[in-house]
Amino acid sequence: MMADIRMRGFSQRTTVHQFEALIREHCRPLGTEEVSIAQAGRRVLAEPVVSGVDVPGFERSAMDGYALRSEETFGAGTYNPLQFRVIGEVTPGRTFPGRVGPGETVRIMTGAPLPDGADAVLMAEYAAERDGVMTASDAVTPRKNVGRIGEDIRAGSTVLPAGRVLRPQDLGVLASIGQGRVRVVRRCGVALLITGNELLRPGERPQGARIVDSNSIMLAQLIARDGAQLAATLHLADIRDDIRAALSDAPGDLLVTTGGTSVGIEDHAPTLIAELGELLVHGVAMRPSAPSGFGLVKGRPVFLLPGNPVSCLAAYDFFVRLGVNLLGGRPEPWPYRPVRCTLTSRIASQIGRVDYARVRVRDGQAELVATSGASILSSTSQADGFVVVEEDSEGIPAGGEAQVWLYD
Amino acid sequence: MMADIRMRGFSQRTTVHQFEALIREHCRPLGTEEVSIAQAGRRVLAEPVVSGVDVPGFERSAMDGYALRSEETFGAGTYNPLQFRVIGEVTPGRTFPGRVGPGETVRIMTGAPLPDGADAVLMAEYAAERDGVMTASDAVTPRKNVGRIGEDIRAGSTVLPAGRVLRPQDLGVLASIGQGRVRVVRRCGVALLITGNELLRPGERPQGARIVDSNSIMLAQLIARDGAQLAATLHLADIRDDIRAALSDAPGDLLVTTGGTSVGIEDHAPTLIAELGELLVHGVAMRPSAPSGFGLVKGRPVFLLPGNPVSCLAAYDFFVRLGVNLLGGRPEPWPYRPVRCTLTSRIASQIGRVDYARVRVRDGQAELVATSGASILSSTSQADGFVVVEEDSEGIPAGGEAQVWLYD
Repeated sequence: MMADIRMRGFSQRTTVHQFEALIREHCRPLGTEEVSIAQAGRRVLAEPVVSGVDVPGFERSAMDGYALRSEETFGAGTYNPLQFRVIGEVTPGRTFPGRVGPGETVRIMTGAPLPDGADAVLMAEYAAERDGVMTASDAVTPRKNVGRIGEDIRAGSTVLPAGRVLRPQDLGVLASIGQGRVRVVRRCGVALLITGNELLRPGERPQGARIVDSNSIMLAQLIARDGAQLAATLHLADIRDDIRAALSDAPGDLLVTTGGTSVGIEDHAPTLIAELGELLVHGVAMRPSAPSGFGLVKGRPVFLLPGNPVSCLAAYDFFVRLGVNLLGGRPEPWPYRPVRCTLTSRIASQIGRVDYARVRVRDGQAELVATSGASILSSTSQADGFVVVEEDSEGIPAGGEAQVWLYD
Repeated sequence: MMADIRMRGFSQRTTVHQFEALIREHCRPLGTEEVSIAQAGRRVLAEPVVSGVDVPGFERSAMDGYALRSEETFGAGTYNPLQFRVIGEVTPGRTFPGRVGPGETVRIMTGAPLPDGADAVLMAEYAAERDGVMTASDAVTPRKNVGRIGEDIRAGSTVLPAGRVLRPQDLGVLASIGQGRVRVVRRCGVALLITGNELLRPGERPQGARIVDSNSIMLAQLIARDGAQLAATLHLADIRDDIRAALSDAPGDLLVTTGGTSVGIEDHAPTLIAELGELLVHGVAMRPSAPSGFGLVKGRPVFLLPGNPVSCLAAYDFFVRLGVNLLGGRPEPWPYRPVRCTLTSRIASQIGRVDYARVRVRDGQAELVATSGASILSSTSQADGFVVVEEDSEGIPAGGEAQVWLYD
């Protein structure tokens, strides 16, 4: 019975790798939805997009210049200028109503359709126009400066693969083939269950023995960063029935609890998850964030994050982010930039345990910011990033090389 | 007179470095505004934040365990267990109403305030409780497992510097010191003036000589990525008076025009800017994006981007992004991750010109995607990133090393 563990410490700690494997096993991609391309930035494409049209759908000029019959320019040069009668002009979006005949030319702008009869465009730089006559000082070969039909995109070609996280230019491609809507993976909805009698709401001033909930504000940003959306933020006292109801009924695809995850007398979440569903992880071989957990309630993944804000941040980045990414069909690498640094002091760890150490970085040197515990949120503001000491390492000595993940 | 240049080519091209210098000269940080911390993610802090409170504001337990008088534990061990009378318990957010006297202890949870009389906390792991008596199998020193007042943040200390792009954990820090609102640099408002008779709106299907505007959709995403916001998207025909009115009256802090930037007969934007204000750049020594420009109208920066979508993307990233960042008070590095690759084929360039070449990356090898021009938007979707050939280079040979900026 889970309640036995209260005030006794964690009986067994799950390793970070075991935890990750369980997340991969239980977090599956969500369904799909259709959204307008204007709303599709950074969304994950649910199916390949095949173009129904050629882009361009007509032969177009790649230059400002003169459309003409290329064979008539052969031999033209600075010392042998040739003359053409300008019979009109064509600008983008219009079609020249006539036909370019022998000795004739049409002034043409970049992107305009090539008039009938012409097969090339002479750049404006090699042309001089006066009184309706254009003098060419260069020759052009057939198709010169003419973009062919489908040169950008061919009808029937796959322009974007399923799984693509849509870039700004991808949305441009979708617009250019006339696709106004696109099918994407549904955005993962996350409900935050913030527990703790001691917590005031963000915006309130700390007083007496009460502190302000900082985790909900931080987690909301992390969730948005990872392409998910906040389904709800519920602030709950340490009342077992209230937490039970929220675990059952909160909206969203994935639940995150903060606080009440350990083995203390008011740590209701782990035992409630065991009662309502399945508690798969409780206690992780990681520092900080040891009192993290994971389970399923009505098939929905529930992540238990420690109330201590540094633990909460690290456990989010290690575990919740992976779950959110899997549900959202996204690739998983961290959003932090890695740099190699030399450590100014030792980071101690243990075989089997992962350590998350905040560091300041100056001139390639990484200095530990704080070792004084998971409660010091300001350490993650003062730090430039963090070093992860992997399970198979006993730590990194002073002067050793470490990979720092930069927060910015 | 600017109109002279039409159909004559650019008389003189500004180098990329000159262009950047002009942007730095004319784009100054915007004013400030106050926003709720829930809305402040990725915003730029306008002034340092100094804490008005200590965090925590009370002595708190760092562990689940037993609060007691440390000197009474001296000598305790597995073979010398010592006993204490449990007189109550204290949980986070509550204050123990009594005082811990000699031989007494109070059950305490992580984060709860230390009761009067106690000076240390014995971890639950070293304690066994039965029938109101706790047996201690370890000794603790004074202050053991007790977090001191202000250990996270001291009243009067600067918790965040001006100019900080607020991280998720920074917002947590702001919440924890009771700050619900924060002063940030105003978000740069950008108006898009999308010109071209040939353009259909995004969502429409290309037909005949008309193509779909893809730039507005792409630019809207880029603007959001860079922390700015869309003030308006105006689709304009190539009608001089309409473009003049929009350049004067569009909302926003910065204007971006697309199309009509070159030297063709319907390229109104450059001459209008010269007429209404100051045209500082027209024509850039860069490939693609040569027909880019920059000027001021009523003191507002106006960027002229080519209508060709690849040029538009590159010119945005080189120039508009810099302007948006300067107005928004943001640091300027590119949002792309750099990797070193070996080129599979030569990238040709010229001294004095910057080249932006799209490449595919496989196993550390970078292969050019398309050299066929600025109109091939799909090249930026097929590419993994791009190589920049700097002004002082004639290009990079096949087999040479190049830095690739990855789009994702």
